[in-house]
Amino acid sequence: MIRSRRDFFRSLPGAAALPSSWVAFTRTLEAAPGIPDATNEAYWRMVQRQFPLEDGLIFLHAANVCPASRPVLDRYVEFLRDFEANPSFQNREKYDPLQERLRRKLAAVLGASADEIAVTRNTSEGNNVVAKGIDLKAGDEVLITDHNHPSNEASWKMRAKREGFVVRSVPVTIPAPGCEQLLDGIVRAVTPRTKVIAVTHVTNTTGILFPVKELADFARGRGIWMHLDGAQTFGALDVNVRAIGCDSYAASAHKWAMGPLEAGVLYVRSERIPELWPSIVTAGWSDRLVGARKFEVLGQRDNPRVVAFDAAVDFLQLLSMKNVEARMRLLANALKQKLREMPRVQLLTNLEPQLSGGVVKFRIRDADTRRAYDALWSRHRISGAMTPATTASNQEGIRLCPHIYNSLEQIDRTAAAVQELTG
Amino acid sequence: MIRSRRDFFRSLPGAAALPSSWVAFTRTLEAAPGIPDATNEAYWRMVQRQFPLEDGLIFLHAANVCPASRPVLDRYVEFLRDFEANPSFQNREKYDPLQERLRRKLAAVLGASADEIAVTRNTSEGNNVVAKGIDLKAGDEVLITDHNHPSNEASWKMRAKREGFVVRSVPVTIPAPGCEQLLDGIVRAVTPRTKVIAVTHVTNTTGILFPVKELADFARGRGIWMHLDGAQTFGALDVNVRAIGCDSYAASAHKWAMGPLEAGVLYVRSERIPELWPSIVTAGWSDRLVGARKFEVLGQRDNPRVVAFDAAVDFLQLLSMKNVEARMRLLANALKQKLREMPRVQLLTNLEPQLSGGVVKFRIRDADTRRAYDALWSRHRISGAMTPATTASNQEGIRLCPHIYNSLEQIDRTAAAVQELTG
Repeated sequence: MIRSRRDFFRSLPGAAALPSSWVAFTRTLEAAPGIPDATNEAYWRMVQRQFPLEDGLIFLHAANVCPASRPVLDRYVEFLRDFEANPSFQNREKYDPLQERLRRKLAAVLGASADEIAVTRNTSEGNNVVAKGIDLKAGDEVLITDHNHPSNEASWKMRAKREGFVVRSVPVTIPAPGCEQLLDGIVRAVTPRTKVIAVTHVTNTTGILFPVKELADFARGRGIWMHLDGAQTFGALDVNVRAIGCDSYAASAHKWAMGPLEAGVLYVRSERIPELWPSIVTAGWSDRLVGARKFEVLGQRDNPRVVAFDAAVDFLQLLSMKNVEARMRLLANALKQKLREMPRVQLLTNLEPQLSGGVVKFRIRDADTRRAYDALWSRHRISGAMTPATTASNQEGIRLCPHIYNSLEQIDRTAAAVQELTG
Repeated sequence: MIRSRRDFFRSLPGAAALPSSWVAFTRTLEAAPGIPDATNEAYWRMVQRQFPLEDGLIFLHAANVCPASRPVLDRYVEFLRDFEANPSFQNREKYDPLQERLRRKLAAVLGASADEIAVTRNTSEGNNVVAKGIDLKAGDEVLITDHNHPSNEASWKMRAKREGFVVRSVPVTIPAPGCEQLLDGIVRAVTPRTKVIAVTHVTNTTGILFPVKELADFARGRGIWMHLDGAQTFGALDVNVRAIGCDSYAASAHKWAMGPLEAGVLYVRSERIPELWPSIVTAGWSDRLVGARKFEVLGQRDNPRVVAFDAAVDFLQLLSMKNVEARMRLLANALKQKLREMPRVQLLTNLEPQLSGGVVKFRIRDADTRRAYDALWSRHRISGAMTPATTASNQEGIRLCPHIYNSLEQIDRTAAAVQELTG
């Protein structure tokens, strides 16, 4: 996943043709001095201070919601007060260029072109736009896995019920046996009627990182639309959608990207954009909208939120996605290693970097999961999730997801708290 | 439109079975002393101070966006900071009951039952849920008018293009010749294949108030789904959806209701709820969700926004919708009367209360509309809209929409500014 910064900028399409403000922005990044690496605790303590989290809280709930950083929150409130003091068209003229700036930044972060980016409201919306927008007829097949999030599963199934196509779900084994086996499971379920493969980049259930590049290669060769739910990778891993080769990718600002609530991104590969119908059409919508903009005409938006999302992307760029991923992985690995050493703990997430991201899930054998989860909160103020069993391979367990605002010391305290529960 | 407060509370379904906190809230309102009426300038000057609008700005743009009141904004920022300081599930447990409280209040304001209310993000979303969610087959007809907003027009047309049913658009005459003629125009366009009539309560184009009760009576008798775009009536008129008898009604918080951005309401009549498919399905969605809740499972929401919307509804209740409508009409009528007296001004909105609401549109004969619109802003800081010609009967013009945060003195200054342009 990690590419060098040089590769990152080399991969940008038509850099010379970009607007000057954008070029200036990328140059600033290029010229920045070396960023302290994932092990520099002094640097990461400074990063930690950028988040308005309560003292004493050990927040390990990134797979659900991350806190917005202070720069994001302050920018949001500043623009919101300005908007509400003067909601005239004239005072709001600034927002179109700001939304275009955000689009260019999101494109740069994800390795796409700006015209392939729509600014949505969350992953669920993006997944549903794709699930509703691809033309499918009776007899067509959509392939998902049994670890997909409901927005990339129930969405397809509801439409299938209404329109009569088929949704087939591939069972996933936990822990994941390997990239080849994951790929194989899906490839073997493909039939000549398969029109869509809709999978999850990193699952919210147990944190499997899917071999998405290989899967996209396979799908592309057969003309199958490959959709990727990026809820657990955008802002967590250094994702490059063009390098992956998927047809669409949906993500949220409010999770790992540490942006505002109800903001999100939908990438649709340029060649596929004409094939996808938008979900909402309203004022401002037109057949002549360029690229993925047609998927984001959603009625009156919270424009200040777009500026807040822009501040979140700036913050990611300031850290560099390479370093965000490295630091997040350092913390997640530390947690997984400690959990793995506990005899009564069953780690439900893979250890291998090619099979995992930032989602960490485990269960305590012969223990009441609900009671353990509640004790982590009430005794130690550790925020995580208790995730239910959804399939034979997705057991009930506790999900703890560290991100860059956490410290190694918090990981130690968390491990000690779990140890206490198993004692 | 205006009903007595006694009727309002009498109409509430099963008031005795409501939770005690809600009963207490309604009792407080019942016990409140007489509210100063629409002509009490001292009272309305106090209301005006509740809005954070810039000094010197004459904001007449309610049909597009209204400012949120200070109570709404402050509540929003307070809950947002709390959310971001601790986004744990545990700290967010409060939001489900708060969303249910909002649902009950919206139901009370609109004369619905709580189970018929979904908390959406804006009118466009609500209109699109209905336009996408009703089962229609090739040959079926949907009837709209040529003054519908694009979210209640392009939405139907796009789906029709994809699925092969027919959208018929009824032309509207400006000024509206009368309620009977408006009703007649639609009734005469109905055929045995008409499955939906989707109209606008008050149009954003020229401000026609449609005879929606009569239309709903007609539609109900024929099993036709009647959908109402309430963008220009929710928070402006004392709307009672049950008294109207429509099947669905969509509106926004950010317009006349003076609530937060990207919050809205969708009413679906209980008998019709099982017939309507939701647009977005994601985590938390289930076939077993009661009533209209199935239309609001949209992925991670901005929960603090729900609390801000609640504060906006409280504020409307504090004023009473009866008085909000009366004050808004007093201001709009004052503006219309003054415009009407100017020889070069052509008023494009009806004067009759049964044919108009808060939207006021006019043009200046033999004048460049763009230049006049720009002058109102640059010389007088009057915020309105220049609305383009969309149909033969919807001419280019200037739209100025006063609401309760405006004063009679601002109306006078606005009239003088228009007079100056015609001089």
